[in-house]
Amino acid sequence: MSKKTVIGLLGLGTVGSGTLKVLNKFDNIIIKNIAVRDTNKKRNIEGLDNNILTTDAEMLVNDPDIDIIVEVMGGLHPAFELIKKALQNGKHIVTANKDLIAKHGEDLFSLAKENNVVIMYEAAVAGGIPILMPLRQSLSGNSITKIAGIMNGTTNYILTKMESEGSEFNAVLKEAQELGYAESDPSGDVQGHDAANKISILASLAFNKKVDVDKIYREGIDYISPIDISYASEFGYNIKLIALAQETKDKALDIRVHPMLISKKHPLAHINDVMNAIVVEGDAVGQVMFSGPGAGEMPTASSVTGDVLSIASELGINEYPLPMMRNNHSTNAVQLKIDDSRSRYYIRVNTDNLPGVIGDLGLTCGRKGINLCSIIQKGLLPDGTARIVLLTALAYEKDIQEALKEMYQKRTMKRVENVIRVMD
Amino acid sequence: MSKKTVIGLLGLGTVGSGTLKVLNKFDNIIIKNIAVRDTNKKRNIEGLDNNILTTDAEMLVNDPDIDIIVEVMGGLHPAFELIKKALQNGKHIVTANKDLIAKHGEDLFSLAKENNVVIMYEAAVAGGIPILMPLRQSLSGNSITKIAGIMNGTTNYILTKMESEGSEFNAVLKEAQELGYAESDPSGDVQGHDAANKISILASLAFNKKVDVDKIYREGIDYISPIDISYASEFGYNIKLIALAQETKDKALDIRVHPMLISKKHPLAHINDVMNAIVVEGDAVGQVMFSGPGAGEMPTASSVTGDVLSIASELGINEYPLPMMRNNHSTNAVQLKIDDSRSRYYIRVNTDNLPGVIGDLGLTCGRKGINLCSIIQKGLLPDGTARIVLLTALAYEKDIQEALKEMYQKRTMKRVENVIRVMD
Repeated sequence: MSKKTVIGLLGLGTVGSGTLKVLNKFDNIIIKNIAVRDTNKKRNIEGLDNNILTTDAEMLVNDPDIDIIVEVMGGLHPAFELIKKALQNGKHIVTANKDLIAKHGEDLFSLAKENNVVIMYEAAVAGGIPILMPLRQSLSGNSITKIAGIMNGTTNYILTKMESEGSEFNAVLKEAQELGYAESDPSGDVQGHDAANKISILASLAFNKKVDVDKIYREGIDYISPIDISYASEFGYNIKLIALAQETKDKALDIRVHPMLISKKHPLAHINDVMNAIVVEGDAVGQVMFSGPGAGEMPTASSVTGDVLSIASELGINEYPLPMMRNNHSTNAVQLKIDDSRSRYYIRVNTDNLPGVIGDLGLTCGRKGINLCSIIQKGLLPDGTARIVLLTALAYEKDIQEALKEMYQKRTMKRVENVIRVMD
Repeated sequence: MSKKTVIGLLGLGTVGSGTLKVLNKFDNIIIKNIAVRDTNKKRNIEGLDNNILTTDAEMLVNDPDIDIIVEVMGGLHPAFELIKKALQNGKHIVTANKDLIAKHGEDLFSLAKENNVVIMYEAAVAGGIPILMPLRQSLSGNSITKIAGIMNGTTNYILTKMESEGSEFNAVLKEAQELGYAESDPSGDVQGHDAANKISILASLAFNKKVDVDKIYREGIDYISPIDISYASEFGYNIKLIALAQETKDKALDIRVHPMLISKKHPLAHINDVMNAIVVEGDAVGQVMFSGPGAGEMPTASSVTGDVLSIASELGINEYPLPMMRNNHSTNAVQLKIDDSRSRYYIRVNTDNLPGVIGDLGLTCGRKGINLCSIIQKGLLPDGTARIVLLTALAYEKDIQEALKEMYQKRTMKRVENVIRVMD
């Protein structure tokens, strides 16, 4: 492997700086140019040669010396156009851009295939955790049945803090923003957009089908209260924002992102703070879990560099790089509608304190074919009303929604305060 | 990838049967022959064509039609000789044989290199958990600083049961033997030989050096008592059999297998029953963990098949398979002696109930430069003696041994009942 591999780096923010530091350790890698917005900006990056900075990103994707374009600028544009041009020019791509891969991955994969090059994006899902290559290689003998994970560090940090301190969502969010764990506009994390991009990428790879990220059902964590966390704990569960993709019997894909009560016996229940983890279930392997830092300068750089070195190592020997790195999703996934999905449910309601209230709840659920597994009511609230928490058996979302509608029509019902899905 | 890959399978025991079932799902894989000890043995394996069974393993390794030899017979001989012949005949190897790779890996890797073929052995470490390929690829940008794991399911099952039931080692071992989780001669598992083979393979890959498995320090779990497990829990720890490999400042490798108190805050503390898990620490990624089933028919078959498909996929396009699958350990590791290793220690002693006993223990440790962090004594035992448990700060093994020797010379000391290392 004496051949040197020449890199053009697009972007020199947090991930770009880390990538530069890590790639600099490898003698067989040459970073020829780095495209930035402002070459005069004061940067304090060890080992940075200011002479290779340029504002002309087009120059990099057109440079015949460059073997691999490493895109760590983020955002859809101009990253999309630059990568397309690079692919047309026969360059391999390594990217950490989850928005781009989730939204335009399939266009890029086709273009890569036409041009006999590869696109690698390990860093786009769960930062430093190796997950895409294990799915493509070590686990390739499996029919994957389910992927479930904690794929967003910000929301996991918030939920962990809410649990350990009993604090309200808004208070912890503010604290997370001050610590730099949450952005000033936190909706991308809190509303599950970020996790949806990641599960979209994973599902497309694991089930070998094109997934439409815009069809993924999403709920955020902003409606979770410390009351729910405390009841969940009493039932033996923690609450986590889960990104989920599973195949139904009819080969439809049930993909969603929402908070869930996770059984404390499940390995995901113990993934705390900003850590990420992904559980993969396959017909042969059973269940394996990958956990670690899902973001950050150096962990993300670790994954970007792993991809670069994998391509570089192959280029040293073979004309065409790893077939295992290729992406061929020729069929569109049939994506299950949320109404047709099945879960167990946690339902917290507030009712008048009258005889027959619990019986009514039970009958309403029963009429929709929903079995109740557990129920908690502890005395009365200070205002004289009752807080009742139900855990259901596996039920269809549409039946749950109808039961909730019916509950609301009861005179005794004041509020359905929360409905959260459950994973055992 | 229309080219079909032809397999010769050596062995049709538990792992062999699973491998056959999984490989049969893939149209591009043809299993030409399976070498077994007895072709007439009654086998109940779905999809098995009895006509491809043979007792002539030599025939397979010499068959020019066969691209990959999959060795799942286990044991050193004749597996070693057969694989050598296969390599000389230009065949790729996939094996689940940890004893063989730990003992003769380097000979085989050199022979593979000479013959421009690869040996893959994902299944040899931690069964179904992808760990070798992630180390070679996704994490290849890292300097690995430490690997620590629970790599033996039998001992983890025993320790988990001892913890949950408060039972003695011998009782749980017997139960595990009845359930088929432990062998009739359990020493390979219980004494840490199995885990030593696995950490030897991992360390050699992660630190890119030849490791001598016979130099790895080992202690079994048979001296762990429910008393230790209960004290550990009080200090905030669980007890696990840990296989550990870390690089010292002088680039020596500190590799050992022994029980450890693992902080309940460490992800390994929550890996229970027969599950395995491996934590990898790298300079860029920080800490990542891989967990799942470390043995069993189908999980092991999952890893074997992943290796077969990786080679097959590459053979469809390129003349030579994945450079990332190659093994080049040209330097021998300097392996640290146990005396020079550093740990925190848990020490449980039984002493006379006399004034100054605790002070004496403290002074003895102090003279060797060992700081004590915690100490527990709760009243007296029924026989009027005292049980005292110490937790030390980081100390050299040789200082601990000298301190223990000195403690023994005190008139008041009855027994040093247990010494266990600690990981935070």
